[in-house]
Amino acid sequence: MERIRVTIQPEQRTVEVAAGTTALDAIEAAGIGLEAPCGGRGRCGKCRVMVRGPASTPRATERRLLGEAEIAHGARLACRARLQGDAEVLVPEEARLGRGSIVADGVERQVALDPAVRKIFAAVPEPSLEDQRGDVERLLATADLAGCVPDGIELARRVPRVLRSSKFRVTAVAIDGLLAGVERGRVSANPLGMAFDIGTTTVVGYLMDLRTGQQLAVGSRLNPQSRYGADVVSRIEFAGQSPEGLTTLNRAILGALDEIIDETCEAAQMRRRFIYEVAVVGNTAMHHLFLRLPPESLAVIPYVPVLTSPRYVPTQSVGMRLHPNARIYTLPNIAGFVGADTVGVALASNLAASPGLTVAVDIGTNGEVVAAADGRLLACSTAAGPAFEGARISQGVRGTEGAIDAVAFGDDVRIHTIGDAPAVGICGSGLIDAVAELRRVGVVEEMGRMLGREEAPAGLPAALRDRMEGSGGEARFLLVRPDEHPAGRLVALTSRDVRELQLAKGALYAGIDILLRRLGAGVAQVDELLLAGAFGNYVRRESAVGIGMIPALGLSRIRSIGNAAGSGAKLALLSRAMRAEAAEIARKVEYVELSNDSAFYDRFTGAMALAPMGEDRG
Amino acid sequence: MERIRVTIQPEQRTVEVAAGTTALDAIEAAGIGLEAPCGGRGRCGKCRVMVRGPASTPRATERRLLGEAEIAHGARLACRARLQGDAEVLVPEEARLGRGSIVADGVERQVALDPAVRKIFAAVPEPSLEDQRGDVERLLATADLAGCVPDGIELARRVPRVLRSSKFRVTAVAIDGLLAGVERGRVSANPLGMAFDIGTTTVVGYLMDLRTGQQLAVGSRLNPQSRYGADVVSRIEFAGQSPEGLTTLNRAILGALDEIIDETCEAAQMRRRFIYEVAVVGNTAMHHLFLRLPPESLAVIPYVPVLTSPRYVPTQSVGMRLHPNARIYTLPNIAGFVGADTVGVALASNLAASPGLTVAVDIGTNGEVVAAADGRLLACSTAAGPAFEGARISQGVRGTEGAIDAVAFGDDVRIHTIGDAPAVGICGSGLIDAVAELRRVGVVEEMGRMLGREEAPAGLPAALRDRMEGSGGEARFLLVRPDEHPAGRLVALTSRDVRELQLAKGALYAGIDILLRRLGAGVAQVDELLLAGAFGNYVRRESAVGIGMIPALGLSRIRSIGNAAGSGAKLALLSRAMRAEAAEIARKVEYVELSNDSAFYDRFTGAMALAPMGEDRG
Repeated sequence: MERIRVTIQPEQRTVEVAAGTTALDAIEAAGIGLEAPCGGRGRCGKCRVMVRGPASTPRATERRLLGEAEIAHGARLACRARLQGDAEVLVPEEARLGRGSIVADGVERQVALDPAVRKIFAAVPEPSLEDQRGDVERLLATADLAGCVPDGIELARRVPRVLRSSKFRVTAVAIDGLLAGVERGRVSANPLGMAFDIGTTTVVGYLMDLRTGQQLAVGSRLNPQSRYGADVVSRIEFAGQSPEGLTTLNRAILGALDEIIDETCEAAQMRRRFIYEVAVVGNTAMHHLFLRLPPESLAVIPYVPVLTSPRYVPTQSVGMRLHPNARIYTLPNIAGFVGADTVGVALASNLAASPGLTVAVDIGTNGEVVAAADGRLLACSTAAGPAFEGARISQGVRGTEGAIDAVAFGDDVRIHTIGDAPAVGICGSGLIDAVAELRRVGVVEEMGRMLGREEAPAGLPAALRDRMEGSGGEARFLLVRPDEHPAGRLVALTSRDVRELQLAKGALYAGIDILLRRLGAGVAQVDELLLAGAFGNYVRRESAVGIGMIPALGLSRIRSIGNAAGSGAKLALLSRAMRAEAAEIARKVEYVELSNDSAFYDRFTGAMALAPMGEDRG
Repeated sequence: MERIRVTIQPEQRTVEVAAGTTALDAIEAAGIGLEAPCGGRGRCGKCRVMVRGPASTPRATERRLLGEAEIAHGARLACRARLQGDAEVLVPEEARLGRGSIVADGVERQVALDPAVRKIFAAVPEPSLEDQRGDVERLLATADLAGCVPDGIELARRVPRVLRSSKFRVTAVAIDGLLAGVERGRVSANPLGMAFDIGTTTVVGYLMDLRTGQQLAVGSRLNPQSRYGADVVSRIEFAGQSPEGLTTLNRAILGALDEIIDETCEAAQMRRRFIYEVAVVGNTAMHHLFLRLPPESLAVIPYVPVLTSPRYVPTQSVGMRLHPNARIYTLPNIAGFVGADTVGVALASNLAASPGLTVAVDIGTNGEVVAAADGRLLACSTAAGPAFEGARISQGVRGTEGAIDAVAFGDDVRIHTIGDAPAVGICGSGLIDAVAELRRVGVVEEMGRMLGREEAPAGLPAALRDRMEGSGGEARFLLVRPDEHPAGRLVALTSRDVRELQLAKGALYAGIDILLRRLGAGVAQVDELLLAGAFGNYVRRESAVGIGMIPALGLSRIRSIGNAAGSGAKLALLSRAMRAEAAEIARKVEYVELSNDSAFYDRFTGAMALAPMGEDRG
């Protein structure tokens, strides 16, 4: 078979292919991705290139899609034009793949698509007495994968059969320096990836197209480990209690991930065997339970993790069923209680490059804080979370149907429940609203004492006073009276609930305060406060400021950035540059161990007051 | 625990260790190996170093082993001296490990010991609130393995337990950039490796100490694949005949390797779980059958291998039971019929650097030839071998007990058999001797015809004439008459045997000739001819020259280099620089496909004559 030389412009990259090869195959053989939404069937007209050199005569389809004038200038559809001699092919910018950018939701960080997974069609030259290279070396050279090695000898064993049963026309899949797969002929399905944010309470998974950067589907589950412990510490204890404890928790999370993979693949009509890579964030404990690393040391002084650096792990040694050579990338952890999820937040919000003084707060089951100024990054973890997720609050619930998620007082109480369903309890944002309103009307004092009914402040609307019950430690306030509920239930906030919220918000505020002091700044200097996590989306900023949970900045300087940890995982899945940045963030972050900071308890006590704190107080 | 800084001289490498650490541990923590044949028990006195700085007072043992004068000058036994403050330790050259050199048998190539496997004792600093690094990162930093990653998440899972159950004193094993193992406390057993030369007929294995470079034991087996085909081509056919064919051959060779491992470990009183690396050479077909790569393409035009590049493969995916994270390194192949064994020969004999024109001939079941001049390397494979291993010779046998391995004619025949046992047949060196002698006395003509008894040359001693039988195609010569054999057997050489030898030696000579011509040289210019392989050790050079099997050089220029392929495997096992060189050799060798060389058949025909060829003929 005659061999011809094709030079791709403007790269000036030359490849040798058989005469009669399409321009599309030649371009892909040169390692350049081309738009071909129709899969190279001559239908979409997206693969328009300029060909200089002998090629097949354009037929009706091409003439119609391109027009005679363009064809007269040398325009061709790459998938239709067969090159018949040495030629030059100019590939315009708009026809190229992989030049798009990714936008993470909420934080809108734009980065260039640069996944570790590449799928390359290769028309491999057949061996001859003049060219006796090994099958594997021949494939790697043609697919522009020199320096790559097959991922496992098993794959090398398959190569000869795949090459010979497909007339040496194959699709190779490379993951960084590894040849991960080789399939017969041209495989048009794009490679897929999953990004996971494994939270203590909720797990979210995103199915992503690694060639376009598009999000194909999203799915979530409650973390089924919850039945073995609501918070991180109780799960770590469970893991250590028996030899099977860790395995039980590990299987539970893998089961949830598997369900999310099923669900998202079904929603997007994709097959899981096209998933080649998985990027994972989570707090350090979730990271360890996912990788089945023994987590016990996280729960005892000095709270050390087993592993903090980013890792690639074959999916098989974790036990996920995807492409056989798929791999898992876990983002780095920072410390025992500041995990890869916080790295994800910092990555997605580009904290390291933020111009002024920025604070990001991620409130999940824990409350992690990162403060950034002039490229310096400080982080700490506060035991802030559980109260905001309903734990330790007498009628606290997670943000599920029927949860009171907003509360406002006028002459009487107005509540909103998720799904407008009958109230089942109160979730974090409702709790903060309620305490902020109780404080505003004087039913709760600045230092957190809830007044008894007999102490009701003068001027309190009668309807509100009627909701006050008991006194002292037994005081409570009815948000929903039995007569207001179809099933006759009541939902009340107790004086003890207010104390729990004080502890949580005090810890969070003190954490922010300590980090800012280490940066030589005060809350007044904060240019932007970012609220990450689902909670950050729902909390009313006025209420959070009102009870002194976050600094009293102007509301324009407080911004919700959604599930930034998950966005960070997506960015890392789609861009290797983002992985390098994640490693750099983890390396760079100065972790502040609050339990070891003599100023912390002092700040913590000072931050218990239910009142706006920071700049408005002067 | 107080930390001190210890600087090792003359490297000026500083490590931080706990006060009270022995100088030996500090030196090893700095990644420097020390002689300690007694295992650090203060008995052998080999670990003599100079200590400058606060240290424990020398006790009786040290005083006795070093003498008061030395101690007054600061000499200490590294295993006894406990450092109590910042100190400098000078490690003299003679106390160091890993500076020795390896001498391969026969070829005497000296190279510095530089194995991929390192065993490092590490006194890991315990975590604290000021030092919350992850267990894995902590270990890697202490053991001077920064940049290393654990080999598999399974190993990372073990690290916390090993650290905490050993008071953070562990022995780490690294294989290049991978942490392959971590054991409690100080493990004094040196890491081991195996080097294998997998021949078509014979398999040889060497058990090597990777710390000292010493060969601990050697073992060999006949290749059990022989029952599925004596030569490479018939085994490839067997592999392709049924789906189980390849698996059968693969299991056969793995079984033989396993037996050799057992045997050598038992001989050296070592445990196989201390074997961390295996280096393998073999011809390309043996390489493929070992890795279970489908070999079919090797046997059909254009004879392409599946894989030529060097590879690292986990022992588990090949199915060898060694250390769980042990790996196999296969040296590169050159082409379908010039394999890693030839690379081993070129490596061991340092062909690439040989000053003049050198030819190496490796006669096993095939006959590979490498010619080297001015750094250029040319290689070819000739179908020379089987006759020399007894195949196709009517009473041919391998070099086993009772094989006639030397023949000389005086007034009658004088033979030698291996083990002086009653003759069972004739092996390669005996065959060459016999034909050379028959030619000398005129019973065989230059073009290979064996005279019938009635044609016996005048002047032939009567005893020799009496051994001539038959005529034409049925002529034969009795080397052993029934009356000379205790069991009444006869051993004869037939006229057909002589033809077989002519074909084999003609192919070999023509291969040498073609390579030399490509180098623009003739046999007269050859400075040195190296005979590799067991056969090369036994053949009488005079006879080989006499029948024109190899060029007629002065005998001082013909040298046997033993199992150079196996020596190459050993060198690669013990030195990473040798692996780089092996890759470079494979890249550099210009492979000459004789079947594609128009001059070959011409040269082959010309080389059939049973007479000295080359310089002596002018």
